[in-house]
Amino acid sequence: MIPIDHPRYHSLVTRERLADAARKGVVAMEGLTAHGRGEAFDYLLGERTTMSALRAERTAAALLLSARHPVISVNGNTAAIAATEIAALQKATGALVEVNLFHRTEERIQLIEDLLTNAGADVFSGPAERLLPLSHDRAWCRREGMYAADVILIPLEDGDRCEALVKMGKTIIAIDLNPLSRTARAASLTIVDELTRAVPEITRASQELDTDDCACLISRLDNHYLLAEAICEMTTRLTACSGLKNTGQTP
Amino acid sequence: MIPIDHPRYHSLVTRERLADAARKGVVAMEGLTAHGRGEAFDYLLGERTTMSALRAERTAAALLLSARHPVISVNGNTAAIAATEIAALQKATGALVEVNLFHRTEERIQLIEDLLTNAGADVFSGPAERLLPLSHDRAWCRREGMYAADVILIPLEDGDRCEALVKMGKTIIAIDLNPLSRTARAASLTIVDELTRAVPEITRASQELDTDDCACLISRLDNHYLLAEAICEMTTRLTACSGLKNTGQTP
Repeated sequence: MIPIDHPRYHSLVTRERLADAARKGVVAMEGLTAHGRGEAFDYLLGERTTMSALRAERTAAALLLSARHPVISVNGNTAAIAATEIAALQKATGALVEVNLFHRTEERIQLIEDLLTNAGADVFSGPAERLLPLSHDRAWCRREGMYAADVILIPLEDGDRCEALVKMGKTIIAIDLNPLSRTARAASLTIVDELTRAVPEITRASQELDTDDCACLISRLDNHYLLAEAICEMTTRLTACSGLKNTGQTP
Repeated sequence: MIPIDHPRYHSLVTRERLADAARKGVVAMEGLTAHGRGEAFDYLLGERTTMSALRAERTAAALLLSARHPVISVNGNTAAIAATEIAALQKATGALVEVNLFHRTEERIQLIEDLLTNAGADVFSGPAERLLPLSHDRAWCRREGMYAADVILIPLEDGDRCEALVKMGKTIIAIDLNPLSRTARAASLTIVDELTRAVPEITRASQELDTDDCACLISRLDNHYLLAEAICEMTTRLTACSGLKNTGQTP
């Protein structure tokens, strides 16, 4: 058991939850490695929601609220870490929740849909088709779901799929702790924040914003600025954490 | 299958090798997450051996060659990724190879010792005792092995154990991609480089250095400088990769 007063309690509990989910088949082995990469970038952010991330989260709420047909795409890691938070976001925005997996089997789809349903989400299910221009199994989705969406929230996505969705003309909101990733760069809006911090902030903003707030946030969206701010936060922390002066001279 | 001309071929093959090893029980679930954290820092290094890392690797060779009783401590991740490289380093330095696990079971010890033996290493085995001042299972080691060592190479180590070994008066060489980690800061010498790049460089240097070279490298060892250089490399890359000017103004 991890003591609740441990300074990194939240991070350690999330890691244990993912390892359990991997043992049950919800999370792929590759999903554990991907989570570790995220942990490293979150460490560089100071494991907190930065001001620029909060701005991105409020803009994400504005995009979801203003959408004609918003969809939240959920994979194994997202379901294992944040099923309850996704259900709350769905209630606040009216978005469809649809499962999409990289390591796709019917059994994993079922496991993850059950996990989301038990957490209170209303999962858009039913027969999928190979509709996205991708060679791997992430091409599968539902015609009336992600394929018809105008705005899609993709937490913890791979770069290929993010790029394909943007090319289809959709507005893509990514949640990605690596501001240098292809996903982060291809998305219309990138939230550089940890999933269980980011999703409740989007939900909170969705309950607060009116139509004018939404229009204002969307008109001022500048993803280059948001990514640059995230990188700046990490650079500052790397340098400050080092506590070392680098003279540039060989000793 | 990952195509051999993929720009990140080496990283992807290593990741697959670890996922396989996790399915066999060699690598712990937590080991996969730890590997992901390393990947993120390696990405920031540009997935290459920097000049300061090479200097650290040559100094590591000097320390191992000058030791009275050098030991290489091997865990599940190290065995899964670099068993062959560890065997070659043992041949070049005459160090003992001893297995030490965080998630310790007799079955995992046996699996990992077999893996090392099959890769050509001569594993120092036999009954272990709880000899290190640590509450968890990493306290177990052999009296004539790690406990008696003056210099220990600890690839991919946890902070508690590194600190305990340093407090026992041993010279500790860490291989750790996170220059901010407790391990990196507590070690006598920290190599901020990926394992399968670092170990062959230590082996190569061990075959080249004479007694005078070793004395010179050891006398000039400055771990603060090496860590500062690694942090500087990462900061530079973060900023350069961004390709963005941060004006510091809200758009």
